[in-house]
Amino acid sequence: MPAPFTAARFTDLVDSLPATVPFVGPETQERARGRTFRARIGANENAFGPSPDAVAAMRAAAAEAWKYCDPENHDLRHAIAAAHGVAPEHVFVGEGIDGILGLVVRMLIGPGQPVVSSLGAYPTFNFHVAGFGGRLVTVPYRDDREDPEALIAAARHESASLVYIANPDNPMGTWWPAADIVRMVDAVPDGTLLLLDEAYAEFAPDGVAPDLDPSDPRVLRLRTFSKVHGLAGIRVGYAIGAAPLIRSFDKVRNHFGISRISQAGALAAIRDSDHVVRVRREVVKARTRIGAIAQANGLVTLPSATNFGAVDCGRDGAYARRVLQALVARDVFVRMPGVAPLDRCIRIGCGRPEELDILAEEFAAALAEAAAG
Amino acid sequence: MPAPFTAARFTDLVDSLPATVPFVGPETQERARGRTFRARIGANENAFGPSPDAVAAMRAAAAEAWKYCDPENHDLRHAIAAAHGVAPEHVFVGEGIDGILGLVVRMLIGPGQPVVSSLGAYPTFNFHVAGFGGRLVTVPYRDDREDPEALIAAARHESASLVYIANPDNPMGTWWPAADIVRMVDAVPDGTLLLLDEAYAEFAPDGVAPDLDPSDPRVLRLRTFSKVHGLAGIRVGYAIGAAPLIRSFDKVRNHFGISRISQAGALAAIRDSDHVVRVRREVVKARTRIGAIAQANGLVTLPSATNFGAVDCGRDGAYARRVLQALVARDVFVRMPGVAPLDRCIRIGCGRPEELDILAEEFAAALAEAAAG
Repeated sequence: MPAPFTAARFTDLVDSLPATVPFVGPETQERARGRTFRARIGANENAFGPSPDAVAAMRAAAAEAWKYCDPENHDLRHAIAAAHGVAPEHVFVGEGIDGILGLVVRMLIGPGQPVVSSLGAYPTFNFHVAGFGGRLVTVPYRDDREDPEALIAAARHESASLVYIANPDNPMGTWWPAADIVRMVDAVPDGTLLLLDEAYAEFAPDGVAPDLDPSDPRVLRLRTFSKVHGLAGIRVGYAIGAAPLIRSFDKVRNHFGISRISQAGALAAIRDSDHVVRVRREVVKARTRIGAIAQANGLVTLPSATNFGAVDCGRDGAYARRVLQALVARDVFVRMPGVAPLDRCIRIGCGRPEELDILAEEFAAALAEAAAG
Repeated sequence: MPAPFTAARFTDLVDSLPATVPFVGPETQERARGRTFRARIGANENAFGPSPDAVAAMRAAAAEAWKYCDPENHDLRHAIAAAHGVAPEHVFVGEGIDGILGLVVRMLIGPGQPVVSSLGAYPTFNFHVAGFGGRLVTVPYRDDREDPEALIAAARHESASLVYIANPDNPMGTWWPAADIVRMVDAVPDGTLLLLDEAYAEFAPDGVAPDLDPSDPRVLRLRTFSKVHGLAGIRVGYAIGAAPLIRSFDKVRNHFGISRISQAGALAAIRDSDHVVRVRREVVKARTRIGAIAQANGLVTLPSATNFGAVDCGRDGAYARRVLQALVARDVFVRMPGVAPLDRCIRIGCGRPEELDILAEEFAAALAEAAAG
């Protein structure tokens, strides 16, 4: 027993942090339940899968996995830049939006410094803010949408270095037209960076993703291969922003941190625009179906520009939580917002038709069980 | 032009950091040269490749890449634990040793705090120490080996929270017997954590990797799938240590940060011990050949317990650098240590026979060019 020795000396900040997990994965739940889910529609994954070209590229890259990746992500960065019509100096490739959020917070936020987000917005961003000692300042959603004016007002009031918004939003699925986002960028206080999380942008109708100058130092856009490209498992996201900000990631990133197989898959995916069109079509169908299933049970689904629908269970968070638990007990993996008033909803992903069949079969019974209480 | 707006407000620490790259990748060099390398023996990769089982597992996982990974890395952690005969609570899976080093430094080192390593040891560790504001204290190598006694003395003198050693060593390939490492662990000052980087341990003869109590809070062992398992491209490493330290990674890690395909590949690799035996046999042959090539040119290769050989060019760093440049100009990718007196050597990886054929053909001419230069 090595009892006489003290444990590692953590920094005061790390000592103060809880050992936490922003999300419990479905696999963890499956292990605890001893049973797999029949419908995996809780993590906003793209159940329609990746481009066959991406799968083929990853399979080919597997045998080359003995080589380190290209730490510059050169080919992928250039392909992303071409797809967005910007120069490669405006593109950073990172380990998913989650990883990029951590790097941005690390670069901009020191202990005690304020960061602005919405109450009930992306928990992993909050995890990173806490992890670097930032002070999270939240503003409420307004009518189930993030509130750009309130976010900007809070950023101004707090002199915050960082303000976060997702458009379209997660977990509610709601969105602002591009013009409102442009207005928000124009209102960003001097010295504040707007983190514009566009993970779901490709699911939104035209006129939601704004046309921004990539050299604008006031905003950093975040995109991902996890959603429309159906590659959540490969951990690749990217940021588009002013070149000096993009270059600064070199100070803090894990240079060889992207899998070589992931690089190959993402490169093939960004080139297969037909697949994106197919996925969007399937997602629209599934979103309509989720609305119909809710409606058949007397419930309303919030308008959504994402690959999920927030179904308003019509009562409080405790009730919605019971609905969720009843669905989980029926092997339907779903999640829900964490705070009121958003938590009157459960969030249902655009699953494949056979998954939504299971949802349709189980939903009435889950509601009845929740009502019984 | 958004010139009237200020750039993002970095923390003072990040502002002070250079935008750097610990290693320039061979792909970057190839792009600059406009020509590919004929022998890729500079990054200590495993040219004999991954287990066919791992390749098959990754190919199968590619189609499932639309799912996020299991953020607990459950199956992989359990398999690693079984392979090492420890409980899973002692195993942390991270984004390569590079990623794990960053997390450990972040957890233990605040601005200005001392960290001890060897002068000329792993640059990426130094990158992370600088990245979190740590003060790097180095001790020299002794007879081309890291110096455990000097490292411990420096850790004690500085009251350092962290001291790093690689055994076997990179970039020299030298090593200490297990008994010396055990003696080093026993001498670790109270409150210091020994980071024991064993990236190359599987290439070493028996009696190099010590038998350590996994509950010992004084030491954290690091292993990787990048070397003997031939999976540098998938970014998976792991740490073995005391359960409270292992749990603390949950405070700071990118929970969904390991690719699902990487999880599948690593899981298959750790189960294929026959492949490890095959790779070790090939590496020993290649190491012997590197020594013979050096000897045929009148040079000595340092004893090595790794998958590379440090060839002593017999003069100073400027000369060795010319030898390296002459090899690179002949399409042979190699690297070398960064500081004297280690930099009298060039580091040559255990390539495939056809790669070492190219080395053998080009080496004399490269030496002649360096001598003339």
